[in-house]
Amino acid sequence: MNDLSERKIIQGIARQATRRPADLVKGIGDDCAVVRKGHGLVELWTMDTLVEGVHFDLSWHPPRLLGRKAANVNISDIGAMGGRPRFALLSLGLPRACAAQLIDPFLAGFQEALGEYEVALVGGDTVSAGERLLLSVTVCGEMREDQVCYRSAAAAGDQVWVSGCLGNAACGLELCRRGVAGQGEYAALLHAHLDPHPQVGLGALLAESGLIHAMMDISDGLATDLAHICAESGVGAEVMAGAVPLADELLQAANLLGLAPLPLALQGGEDYQLVFTAPVENNESLQTLCLQAGMKIFCVGRIVAGNRVMLRQDTGWRDITFGGYEHRF
Amino acid sequence: MNDLSERKIIQGIARQATRRPADLVKGIGDDCAVVRKGHGLVELWTMDTLVEGVHFDLSWHPPRLLGRKAANVNISDIGAMGGRPRFALLSLGLPRACAAQLIDPFLAGFQEALGEYEVALVGGDTVSAGERLLLSVTVCGEMREDQVCYRSAAAAGDQVWVSGCLGNAACGLELCRRGVAGQGEYAALLHAHLDPHPQVGLGALLAESGLIHAMMDISDGLATDLAHICAESGVGAEVMAGAVPLADELLQAANLLGLAPLPLALQGGEDYQLVFTAPVENNESLQTLCLQAGMKIFCVGRIVAGNRVMLRQDTGWRDITFGGYEHRF
Repeated sequence: MNDLSERKIIQGIARQATRRPADLVKGIGDDCAVVRKGHGLVELWTMDTLVEGVHFDLSWHPPRLLGRKAANVNISDIGAMGGRPRFALLSLGLPRACAAQLIDPFLAGFQEALGEYEVALVGGDTVSAGERLLLSVTVCGEMREDQVCYRSAAAAGDQVWVSGCLGNAACGLELCRRGVAGQGEYAALLHAHLDPHPQVGLGALLAESGLIHAMMDISDGLATDLAHICAESGVGAEVMAGAVPLADELLQAANLLGLAPLPLALQGGEDYQLVFTAPVENNESLQTLCLQAGMKIFCVGRIVAGNRVMLRQDTGWRDITFGGYEHRF
Repeated sequence: MNDLSERKIIQGIARQATRRPADLVKGIGDDCAVVRKGHGLVELWTMDTLVEGVHFDLSWHPPRLLGRKAANVNISDIGAMGGRPRFALLSLGLPRACAAQLIDPFLAGFQEALGEYEVALVGGDTVSAGERLLLSVTVCGEMREDQVCYRSAAAAGDQVWVSGCLGNAACGLELCRRGVAGQGEYAALLHAHLDPHPQVGLGALLAESGLIHAMMDISDGLATDLAHICAESGVGAEVMAGAVPLADELLQAANLLGLAPLPLALQGGEDYQLVFTAPVENNESLQTLCLQAGMKIFCVGRIVAGNRVMLRQDTGWRDITFGGYEHRF
């Protein structure tokens, strides 16, 4: 079963999903499905499942923050296409020995995160689930059809941008795993893992600006998520190792942990920063726009002809295509 | 934790879900959430999770039929409000030791069921899931806003109808559990458990007719699901034991298994028949309508003032309010 990767399963599902109603703008293969709603608007749909012991560990994840994260990782998918999240459904699978004192703060955190983006919880279900807590969330968003930013819109010559430091979440997870979570100097890293912040505002700003081409959120690491953009767009990409934004805390913590920071940034998942591409001629407008909104963005490379994601280091080029976190079964 | 029932958790969630956008017609508390879409139309949203060992057993559930069931139990929720299912999202949680030969027939069955109702699979995700196969499905439907049949629309004096024989699925499950599944004479019971048929056509027919008040599907047994209608409508109900439709196969199999058939029919879940209420004066029109459509419906009781569901047997009255299958944790 070790060749049964998430990507292959999804490709198999997508091949079978041949039904194409006229109002379905985009089915499987992007951060969200896109369905035409009328009046120039579309709906965006996304669904993510988090499984205890696979995606989170209750021994260090406070239930309230877990609730926030379950909401925010889905909200991030809406933001990654430039949309505004509106409605959520929650399916809660409770293990046999689930503590009542876990559910209340979890739900409070979930609602708190929804509230920050004015998302209404409208349904779902609650089931028994054996050994592990299961969190399945569906979020529906909305936006103008002509502003949707797809993975497939990258063009050779575009520059590749990210919305913030990478690797923080992966390093925060490692700190938690090794039990060095209590150190205040790494608060930003722990926060990135425990309570990630979806880039909804920036996503909408970029989508409305018309200055960018492709966009998605970084949930599986830049190496993999940029490879998704390349695969969908029929292009390749070059990433400059020295341009990948790394937080000072990451450098310090990686040193403490004996880990190289760059692999954390390229292969570590769950940063929920945005990666997007834009024509070179929009550079100045893009930077001005983000600066005025108080947001910093970082150019990390460019889109080229081909189909690989290549990393440029001092020592030469390295192929990192789909080299991020890959779910295997 | 034995007092932590599904109903209480959902009530807790519903209390917290105070956000009410103007286009949200109905949030938590019915088969589907209802969101206004414009042009007199609404969207219906539902989400259900099935967990291996809790909701299905792979030792007797063929993967293709499980795929069909995962789709159909959600499609049933759309039908239970009178809607037409349109789009689906599937979140697949695969256990460590998941056989590749399970996934393909599962997905084929899932797509097959979607295809029968012209539903398009538009998204979802695939994750690792520890010990158990997890199936989380979201389905979105559509219908005219003025035709939506809510749980809350029952009125004292209404008659209570069901769309078919009850208890078959519970009895089929019991046959599978005890390993007497191979007997051809119980095919209808096994089918009811393994491959339930959602009453989408009848649901839409009833909703469009304007002849009925409240409606929902019977997933947790008539005693519980009729109690949901009563609770939402602020009424009580009386069920005539002798009027509950029982299949001949159920009577025979129950006898073989040493079980009383009526409890299977009232408390057994997963029949996915419809229960609905209608004013007495619509009796004839209702029966004519269904007869012409080749569908049989059965009057099993009536709506009364109060807040209990009472069962009338030869021996007297018995309170069966929420006496069906209740998910406890």
